[in-house]
Amino acid sequence: MNDKQTGINDKQTEMNDKQIGIFDSGVGGLTVMAAIARQLPRERLVYLGDTARLPYGTKSAETVSRYAVQATRALMRFDVKLIVVACNTASAVALPVLTAALAPVPVIGVVEPGARAAVAASRSGHIAVIGTEGTVRGGAYVRAVHALKPDARVEQKACPLFVGLAEEGWTEGDVPERVATRYLHDVFDGAGEKPDTLVLGCTHFPVLTQPIARAVGAGVTLVDSAQTTAEEVARLLDEKDLRRRGAAAAPIFLATDAVERFARVGSLFLGRTIDPAHVELVDLAP
Amino acid sequence: MNDKQTGINDKQTEMNDKQIGIFDSGVGGLTVMAAIARQLPRERLVYLGDTARLPYGTKSAETVSRYAVQATRALMRFDVKLIVVACNTASAVALPVLTAALAPVPVIGVVEPGARAAVAASRSGHIAVIGTEGTVRGGAYVRAVHALKPDARVEQKACPLFVGLAEEGWTEGDVPERVATRYLHDVFDGAGEKPDTLVLGCTHFPVLTQPIARAVGAGVTLVDSAQTTAEEVARLLDEKDLRRRGAAAAPIFLATDAVERFARVGSLFLGRTIDPAHVELVDLAP
Repeated sequence: MNDKQTGINDKQTEMNDKQIGIFDSGVGGLTVMAAIARQLPRERLVYLGDTARLPYGTKSAETVSRYAVQATRALMRFDVKLIVVACNTASAVALPVLTAALAPVPVIGVVEPGARAAVAASRSGHIAVIGTEGTVRGGAYVRAVHALKPDARVEQKACPLFVGLAEEGWTEGDVPERVATRYLHDVFDGAGEKPDTLVLGCTHFPVLTQPIARAVGAGVTLVDSAQTTAEEVARLLDEKDLRRRGAAAAPIFLATDAVERFARVGSLFLGRTIDPAHVELVDLAP
Repeated sequence: MNDKQTGINDKQTEMNDKQIGIFDSGVGGLTVMAAIARQLPRERLVYLGDTARLPYGTKSAETVSRYAVQATRALMRFDVKLIVVACNTASAVALPVLTAALAPVPVIGVVEPGARAAVAASRSGHIAVIGTEGTVRGGAYVRAVHALKPDARVEQKACPLFVGLAEEGWTEGDVPERVATRYLHDVFDGAGEKPDTLVLGCTHFPVLTQPIARAVGAGVTLVDSAQTTAEEVARLLDEKDLRRRGAAAAPIFLATDAVERFARVGSLFLGRTIDPAHVELVDLAP
């Protein structure tokens, strides 16, 4: 091996060793982080939750785009090789802006992987999508499903209270089931043929799988973006030969406010305990 | 009347004609605005909802203070004679900072008036307070009640889901009643003597009076800050001879994001329809 080759290999190793940045408005994106960590256990992951300005779901597309650019720029300081926008609202309304702002670092959102999972799961082509007000208003899932399957029939329903229930940890029992029934009754209990697939179009919603499944009844497949997004990350790393080969490394957690709350509520979404001493407070003020 | 006196009178009229600025993180403070408008129908009111950064209730005291100073400074541009902090969280954690930042313009919060209403209503001296996480964590209501009645017994309970229910307009029926029961069961259905007074320590909560009243049962007086805050505003205007004497004027509405949503959800809290065309979008970026 000559010097030049060693240099190239060092550079490649250095590139592969870079982090994967994961961004969300709060803690919901930790469900996506968990799936990426399972799929790619050797990767170094740095997660930023913009907890000072959450939720994004009730805000305008312009404000979400501005906040998302500021937040992902803070992640870029960590020398990342890839950014995952693990927030449905930001993915739905800000992905083109983020892709332009962060180039040449590639950006992966959760909407397109979620739509792909839905199209793969649906036999009837009749798909329902639930999400925040911002995600539903933007219609990104409808467009993403139709891009993959033009004759699909897609219904949407905004379910903003699911966010509060998930954050409160009320994920089972009477209250979440009644909320789910009230939201989903029109879509799943109507006279016509009901959807056979339901996209959980918000990273908060997977922790409410049980009450949502009860509300929609048998024969409906629930899909979320976490696993398909992790697969998309793996595919992109392989395509660019960017997989990390070192030993597993501890993730980094960043939050823009209230690190105690981030650790406490975030543990529910990540599926393991986050020590608040390991969450760093960052300031995004320009 | 000599020239000098006329000048003083003109100056006094000009001062009296100034606006009352009302600030909240979102739309909940419109319940306070409605009470002020009823109490003081001739006053000119300008309301700012910091909808780009709501909710404040889950954020740290430092972040709430910073946001509240920025938002009230935007209100000061309207030539105001008095600022009402119609947000329990900001009143609970940021009132000293705001009072210093806005001096010499007087600042009235909602916590002290709410505590006064509770002490006046309670016969047993056993008072419960419900609010956001931030309000409860800060303990401002407990301190305010004890300042008025040192031997009072005060219990607190954070009820963050009430905010989402109120914003969703789910103010009656099964779901809000079950949520209220789940939150308030420990405080009101225990073995001991139950509180005889419940402070609705969040401006979102008055629209949920019906399910909350059912959950706590008979013999409990529900008090909120809106009416007593309006009375405090009237008292302060009289003390400084600052009441406006002109004809009633249309209020001004400002929001930092999503004016359509502000008008739609805000109408529920104000008790009358807000035209989105009359809500001005303002940018608080420094």
